[in-house]
Amino acid sequence: MLAEIITIGDEILIGQIVDSNSAWMAQQLNAIGIRVKQISSISDNREHILTGIKEASQRADVILMTGGLGPTKDDITKTTLAEYFGVGMKRDEATLEHVRQIFARFNRPLLDVNISQADVPENCEVLFNKNGTAPGLWFQENGKVYVSMPGVPHEMMYLMEDLVIPKLKATFALPKILHQTILTVGEGESFLAARIADIEDQLPPEIKLAYLPKLGTVRLRLSAYGNADADEEKLKQELETQTQKLINRLGQTVAATEDIPLEKAILLLMAKNKQTLALAESCTGGYLAHLFTSQPGASSVFLGGAVSYSYEMKEKMLGVNSDTLWETGAVSEETVREMVEGALRNFGSDYAVAVTGIAGPDGGTPEKPVGTVWIGVARKGKTIAKKYVFGNKRIQNIERTAITAMGDLLKLLREPIV
Amino acid sequence: MLAEIITIGDEILIGQIVDSNSAWMAQQLNAIGIRVKQISSISDNREHILTGIKEASQRADVILMTGGLGPTKDDITKTTLAEYFGVGMKRDEATLEHVRQIFARFNRPLLDVNISQADVPENCEVLFNKNGTAPGLWFQENGKVYVSMPGVPHEMMYLMEDLVIPKLKATFALPKILHQTILTVGEGESFLAARIADIEDQLPPEIKLAYLPKLGTVRLRLSAYGNADADEEKLKQELETQTQKLINRLGQTVAATEDIPLEKAILLLMAKNKQTLALAESCTGGYLAHLFTSQPGASSVFLGGAVSYSYEMKEKMLGVNSDTLWETGAVSEETVREMVEGALRNFGSDYAVAVTGIAGPDGGTPEKPVGTVWIGVARKGKTIAKKYVFGNKRIQNIERTAITAMGDLLKLLREPIV
Repeated sequence: MLAEIITIGDEILIGQIVDSNSAWMAQQLNAIGIRVKQISSISDNREHILTGIKEASQRADVILMTGGLGPTKDDITKTTLAEYFGVGMKRDEATLEHVRQIFARFNRPLLDVNISQADVPENCEVLFNKNGTAPGLWFQENGKVYVSMPGVPHEMMYLMEDLVIPKLKATFALPKILHQTILTVGEGESFLAARIADIEDQLPPEIKLAYLPKLGTVRLRLSAYGNADADEEKLKQELETQTQKLINRLGQTVAATEDIPLEKAILLLMAKNKQTLALAESCTGGYLAHLFTSQPGASSVFLGGAVSYSYEMKEKMLGVNSDTLWETGAVSEETVREMVEGALRNFGSDYAVAVTGIAGPDGGTPEKPVGTVWIGVARKGKTIAKKYVFGNKRIQNIERTAITAMGDLLKLLREPIV
Repeated sequence: MLAEIITIGDEILIGQIVDSNSAWMAQQLNAIGIRVKQISSISDNREHILTGIKEASQRADVILMTGGLGPTKDDITKTTLAEYFGVGMKRDEATLEHVRQIFARFNRPLLDVNISQADVPENCEVLFNKNGTAPGLWFQENGKVYVSMPGVPHEMMYLMEDLVIPKLKATFALPKILHQTILTVGEGESFLAARIADIEDQLPPEIKLAYLPKLGTVRLRLSAYGNADADEEKLKQELETQTQKLINRLGQTVAATEDIPLEKAILLLMAKNKQTLALAESCTGGYLAHLFTSQPGASSVFLGGAVSYSYEMKEKMLGVNSDTLWETGAVSEETVREMVEGALRNFGSDYAVAVTGIAGPDGGTPEKPVGTVWIGVARKGKTIAKKYVFGNKRIQNIERTAITAMGDLLKLLREPIV
């Protein structure tokens, strides 16, 4: 089963935004056994949309479109879809009522352009969009499925997860594909590969292994492939057997045995052990706290943290000694130790993490170049501080520091308390 | 002049990587007056590549391809290009020597697959790739230009900047395209559209307006189009005139008159006025701090902040009264006022922002449903607190709260100090 993804609108074509929607959609489709044949970004132009859909439908059975559904004049996807299928437009009352309610809630007047968001091609099934005013549209014609969704990521994601994927599964006899992910932290791709080479060589033909490296973590994804009529239970058991072999071999490198972010793995482990966490962030500037607090239920573990960008904030919030700062600098072992122990003491948590470094692009010196980072992790009676030197790109340094700090925390969490 | 971008390879189609190359290339092309008609991601498959090139060449004059030039088996772009043009392959001695040197430098044996990297279609001009082993290829046929480049971002970027862009300028009489972006905050797309409808209707034909909405902000992008021989200065003036009309009409809604994120607009304004900022974040959990600190040079304005997730942290770091918390709750006007004033007082900044709310998915009550957020902004002698009710998705609530808080801060920054 093949699919194509078409994004409609100029934002991608002029390079104003990067098309991250399509990669996400491709992952979702692959997960249910639908391969993506082509991804195309086209303009908000009637002829171009018509050609794009026609070309895609000649190659694939499922055509997913995003974008071009907003209320303003440059959004013409819906009427062009009606033209493509040779039908007129109808008003969808449920969508209109929903749009009305949204505008009422925000005390905004309902304009004609908003009302027209409820107008859809006659032959479509409306995919109700509870997160926005533009509905999704589902078409089925000559055994092919066409779906049009808004381009706003969270609206598209909701429609995909809750409506489109289940409907695709119900419509087609899809092959069975099962995935199992092992999240590892702290070792590079080639090093991991060398450690598990013999297991990988002996994998049965229906099981494939992929390495998905990303900034300090590597996900190992095992996938089991079967036909639509394959014995799912057997496929599942084989996947489980191979997964267990890898987990046993990789030991402490394994942070999680499901496809979750590292921060969630840590929160789950700490919640299970009824432990609390506080942070003291300098160079990551709140990013670590953001990662943890993006997870629902973080508050049972995460008490809070200090984003101490200035010297004064390090002194006030964390009790770092002024002399330490002026003598060893903000990026030093001494400072990070005082930061992490200050966080533990002031915030009363069981564990604390502190980071201080030079994210760049400026602020480097010959002794402490951009990318120099000190990470401290601590619990009562035990503090570990480590120095890292990353690259010269600010955003990557922030992300890399956060992941590495979480890796260090995980190690400490696993050390027995003596 | 129209271009198409084709990325070749499976990484994008399975969602393993996001196609950021194409957005970057589109920006470069737009800057020299070449509009991108379509961006396509296709597989490493001979037929698919042939079809992709053919379809693109029917729509555009410049076809830029990336990917599929590595030494491994699935990289067949070069031979397929030779087939497309009906020519054989030749060995490029300069490239071979370059590959030889690279392998000698890393003490690696030179394999046949590496030597074949110097083989190129007979009709191409080689674009020497000093950053890698795969050369770029430049073809000119029937007035159209075809370029093939490696997909590794820094190799592609070097080839584009140093060779492809200059050659395109020399080959074609390019039209002139200028863009101007206005960043607005606090008003929805349709409401903005209604406010500027008359200006939009009266835009001269060479100026186009696009709405780019994103979570509480809307970017208005004006683009001026002229021929190769158009008077660039006149085009610029016309763009400037129309931009000014919109800015005058939209007034305080305008956060920036260039294409920058809201946090950067705020940092620039505060840096200009030598003002400092501190934060007190509950429901955004560090995300606001992260946005500000992602900007290089943030430290001249941003002192730091408290991520006060627990009651205790609100008391300890911000001096929020325990009675206030227990009597009015963590999500209340009283608490947000004490938080923001506590941040101002404890952290010694000129301005402070505090947010507290229920991000979800749990923790809502009938009186304070998930999505209820209080935002406080303050400077000495003036505190403004506002209540918002957003949706029920945690991540969106966090992002929406952050953007809205920045909008509120911007308003206060613009109020004259009496």
